[in-house]
Amino acid sequence: MKVLMTYFEVFDILRREFSNVSLKTETIPIQEALDRICAKDIISSIDVPHFDKSTVDGYAIRCEKTFSANDENPAIFDLVGEVKTGEIPTFEIGEGQAARIFTGGHVPDGSNAVVMLENTIEEDGKLFVFRPVKPNENILKKGEDIKKGCIVIKKYQKLKAPQIGVLAAIGQKEVEVFSKLKVGIISTGDEIISQDQNLEGAKIYDVNSYTLFASCTEEYTVPKLYGIVKDDYNALQDMLSKAILENDIVLVSGGSSVGTYDNTLKAISSLENSKILVDGVSIKPGKPTIIAKVFDKAIFGLPGHPVSCLFIFKFFVKRLIDILLHQQDTSKKVLAKMKTNFSISSGRTEFVFVKLIYSDEIIAEPLYGKSGSINLLNNASGYIRVDSTKTGIKAGDIVEVTLL
Amino acid sequence: MKVLMTYFEVFDILRREFSNVSLKTETIPIQEALDRICAKDIISSIDVPHFDKSTVDGYAIRCEKTFSANDENPAIFDLVGEVKTGEIPTFEIGEGQAARIFTGGHVPDGSNAVVMLENTIEEDGKLFVFRPVKPNENILKKGEDIKKGCIVIKKYQKLKAPQIGVLAAIGQKEVEVFSKLKVGIISTGDEIISQDQNLEGAKIYDVNSYTLFASCTEEYTVPKLYGIVKDDYNALQDMLSKAILENDIVLVSGGSSVGTYDNTLKAISSLENSKILVDGVSIKPGKPTIIAKVFDKAIFGLPGHPVSCLFIFKFFVKRLIDILLHQQDTSKKVLAKMKTNFSISSGRTEFVFVKLIYSDEIIAEPLYGKSGSINLLNNASGYIRVDSTKTGIKAGDIVEVTLL
Repeated sequence: MKVLMTYFEVFDILRREFSNVSLKTETIPIQEALDRICAKDIISSIDVPHFDKSTVDGYAIRCEKTFSANDENPAIFDLVGEVKTGEIPTFEIGEGQAARIFTGGHVPDGSNAVVMLENTIEEDGKLFVFRPVKPNENILKKGEDIKKGCIVIKKYQKLKAPQIGVLAAIGQKEVEVFSKLKVGIISTGDEIISQDQNLEGAKIYDVNSYTLFASCTEEYTVPKLYGIVKDDYNALQDMLSKAILENDIVLVSGGSSVGTYDNTLKAISSLENSKILVDGVSIKPGKPTIIAKVFDKAIFGLPGHPVSCLFIFKFFVKRLIDILLHQQDTSKKVLAKMKTNFSISSGRTEFVFVKLIYSDEIIAEPLYGKSGSINLLNNASGYIRVDSTKTGIKAGDIVEVTLL
Repeated sequence: MKVLMTYFEVFDILRREFSNVSLKTETIPIQEALDRICAKDIISSIDVPHFDKSTVDGYAIRCEKTFSANDENPAIFDLVGEVKTGEIPTFEIGEGQAARIFTGGHVPDGSNAVVMLENTIEEDGKLFVFRPVKPNENILKKGEDIKKGCIVIKKYQKLKAPQIGVLAAIGQKEVEVFSKLKVGIISTGDEIISQDQNLEGAKIYDVNSYTLFASCTEEYTVPKLYGIVKDDYNALQDMLSKAILENDIVLVSGGSSVGTYDNTLKAISSLENSKILVDGVSIKPGKPTIIAKVFDKAIFGLPGHPVSCLFIFKFFVKRLIDILLHQQDTSKKVLAKMKTNFSISSGRTEFVFVKLIYSDEIIAEPLYGKSGSINLLNNASGYIRVDSTKTGIKAGDIVEVTLL
């Protein structure tokens, strides 16, 4: 009996083989860059703000005069003008003078603080300030938010709305990001038909093409469907050759039966410069997983069962995508209390799908379903891992659930 | 001083005014339906599987003969054929007979179980079975996964990869989903310029258009930028009239200063059939938030500060989108321990941005940054809520962090 790899051995291999693959980049408008990965350090060529800016509506003053001000003894200033937002003031503020200013306004020379409107009364050209104002109060100093010459976004940082805001703030219209990875998807099996065909005999509809396509989209890759290939060595080899040329990653699902598994393994091995990295993993589901490297590209042989296939995508293919793009695993995890016992017996590390029930505490209810049941996944919130050294989990145990 | 609404009053108003708005639907290919919302109950027109299916590689048998089988006393069967996967067997299984079958194969008539390959030896046309096999073992019965006539996906259910798999399994190529909401985005302010313009005087680059665009994309809506409008009543009113015609939701940011706020409020009020629902909220940041209903559409007046603007999107606009599409709030939350004290004094409910540090425990470090700092958000993992009745949070307190 062949010795199966553990899943952490597989993680190590993926890291070793794919961490240093160089990726293409492209330059795109910042508003289209959500969830893309920045391809180089971004350095600001300006100070933000590029002038001393008021953060409130109020009055620009020299603040020293207010230090002993209170409700009974306001500090009194002469009103000398108003700062027009967006323009540089044409006047200076002297001792005992004040100028109206609004949020975002350019603090005039000579002043060193802005007192909030709420703490003042304006009357007959005079301004009464009823509380002490500290130096620089309500002023965002030039470069205080972002300093010219500083790195604002790092290479490999994922661009979410705040990062896109930072790019906008420093005046960038475009950003260089890694190109989306291309993923080719092939379903195999004599029994698999497309949704265009009539369901007859012992055929079943192709599920994996669609769950994999959706999962690829979810990981911001560009999936392409190559359709269904019969359990035939030459047909599979032809399709693989075509798909690996056109993509960074190729996913072949099906062919987990004796014979068809060997067929898939042989077809993958036959490709030029193909190196089989993984040939079976000691996990359940997903034992018949194949991973190969072809030049700098990857081919996955995934189980045919829809549940196993989708799980292995989330467990291994997503991991590879993260490694290629230098991303941390961002799977969300929650702690939950097991509702019932769950025993395992495969001798492999088992992944158990659970439904989470949110009451006073979070309850994890294990989902039973025969292998091949797609509806099981439809009801699953996530999965828990039970190591092969254990015999199961007990009701009441606290388990870590990785959300799907 | 006007009385500000609480944020939960705002939630109530949004629910009351927008829960029953009817939305357009469209029919799209299932592989493009990721994260879309199903527009009607989906009923399966077939049984899945539509025949008794083997879930393993092995042999179809009548199992009764194996009940006392063990390593020393195997049950012995005559091998009578092989089931070709995808085809209906042309033979029946009689007492004491067995047929080779592979995963996904059609269980032949007469047999009532499949014994796994691993538990057998085949020799000279005889099959030796070394353990008891139960009735229906390793068979997924017709309709056991999905029953014909059952609802498999409910109206308003979000379509993730498993749901798309279910649609594929029942033979659906397309699915009717709610059309994406259209969101118009307007930035206002005399000081705001686009990234095409030169940064001069006391101008600043438009940030909110881009953070809002990205946030809309993240919520699966279709955003459209309407550019920058000066602080001018007529210009704003014109742009609002145009944008509300073309979209389901319009977001206007800026105009939080005295005067410009009133201007925005007036321009929104002036639209035909406009009803101001919210005019200021007792929260920080985000006090100058305006929400109006125009026919069945919504207009948000958002604060001009990029941090406040983005927060209010996530807090109120996202909530409206969820209400329109009948979705639960799916914000991820984690518990963390405060690193330092944080005091509040606004008299309003405050939202404090924190950076999460994952060590042995999860630590929340409050981020300080003057109002208007975009870089603050760049470093934030999420935010915590401090109710107006409190004076702050202490170091060591366990707080709930809503992830950004």
